[in-house]
Amino acid sequence: MATVLYMSVSLDGFVSTPDDFLGGSDGNRLHDWYAPGGDEAALTGDAKALADELDEIGAVVTGRRTAELMDHWGGDVHNGVPIFVPSHRPPGPAARWGYPNVTYVLDGIRSAIAQAAAAAGDRNVYVQGGYTARKAIEEGVLDEIQVHLIPVLLGDGHRLFDTLPAEVELEVLRVIDTPHATHIRYRVLR
Amino acid sequence: MATVLYMSVSLDGFVSTPDDFLGGSDGNRLHDWYAPGGDEAALTGDAKALADELDEIGAVVTGRRTAELMDHWGGDVHNGVPIFVPSHRPPGPAARWGYPNVTYVLDGIRSAIAQAAAAAGDRNVYVQGGYTARKAIEEGVLDEIQVHLIPVLLGDGHRLFDTLPAEVELEVLRVIDTPHATHIRYRVLR
Repeated sequence: MATVLYMSVSLDGFVSTPDDFLGGSDGNRLHDWYAPGGDEAALTGDAKALADELDEIGAVVTGRRTAELMDHWGGDVHNGVPIFVPSHRPPGPAARWGYPNVTYVLDGIRSAIAQAAAAAGDRNVYVQGGYTARKAIEEGVLDEIQVHLIPVLLGDGHRLFDTLPAEVELEVLRVIDTPHATHIRYRVLR
Repeated sequence: MATVLYMSVSLDGFVSTPDDFLGGSDGNRLHDWYAPGGDEAALTGDAKALADELDEIGAVVTGRRTAELMDHWGGDVHNGVPIFVPSHRPPGPAARWGYPNVTYVLDGIRSAIAQAAAAAGDRNVYVQGGYTARKAIEEGVLDEIQVHLIPVLLGDGHRLFDTLPAEVELEVLRVIDTPHATHIRYRVLR
């Protein structure tokens, strides 16, 4: 089991524009690689293998901001696996009553990761969101980082890494070069 | 002839720490790939080929901040090619009298790039510095970007791309995966 951050990010480090869009004229520039021409079924080769890795995850830890922007994906972000949302505040009504798969965790990122790991068994925990990722890195509970580096400069927006309190060494595990992105997987060294 | 930004950058987008160091315990983390174990002669294979590309450049355009921090490299940053420094202010004494290869350009980045291109002939112009790169991108005079993406999160510092006034599309030209970095070359699309 590993906790793995999966994020699509522009070369200038943004995961969305200031108004929470993903760039480009279609508002989804950062995720084009995942659905070429808007069609996930059109994925082939290395890009498809990368996308298929997500089928192996056992739980999700996601930031509240992302979760609420996405309406909690209707309670199912991927294959119905449990979703944990670390937050300082109790969930809103939809998450409280509407989605049995969604659990708000109010006692910190370590607890959220631990609950997700328990739910995932020997499968990986999929971490998403910039703030959540930074907290997980700071607390030493993020094992790997899978970035999909998109060949675009968004110019402004929300940064994946923003700032961290200390330097963190990484190790490159794998580089996959596809027409739409450079997909790099790192191990977080501690 | 192409104008090419060459920069080593951390995964979180920094080209130096807040106090102008390059990270790591040796203060040169971002350039380790270029001199493994502190020895440029130890470079081999793909990394050496990348470094050797710099022998083909015909001129340099560099930001004033970098130039002054580096004492103008004693007037010779690489093989004695001419160095152009776009700035709003006249050069200080050392650059004014000490270095015949160094020219301050006071009428903007376009002029600096044009003068460098004229000096370079059919060779490439090596652009360096975050602010200078952003100005060149904004003005549409940067052709390519060669980043050496270093597997480290510096946490804070000076950003390569910071913010830009508009989205800029890139095209991946080449990805080279070496033990110390992921080297990606982009074409800037206009």
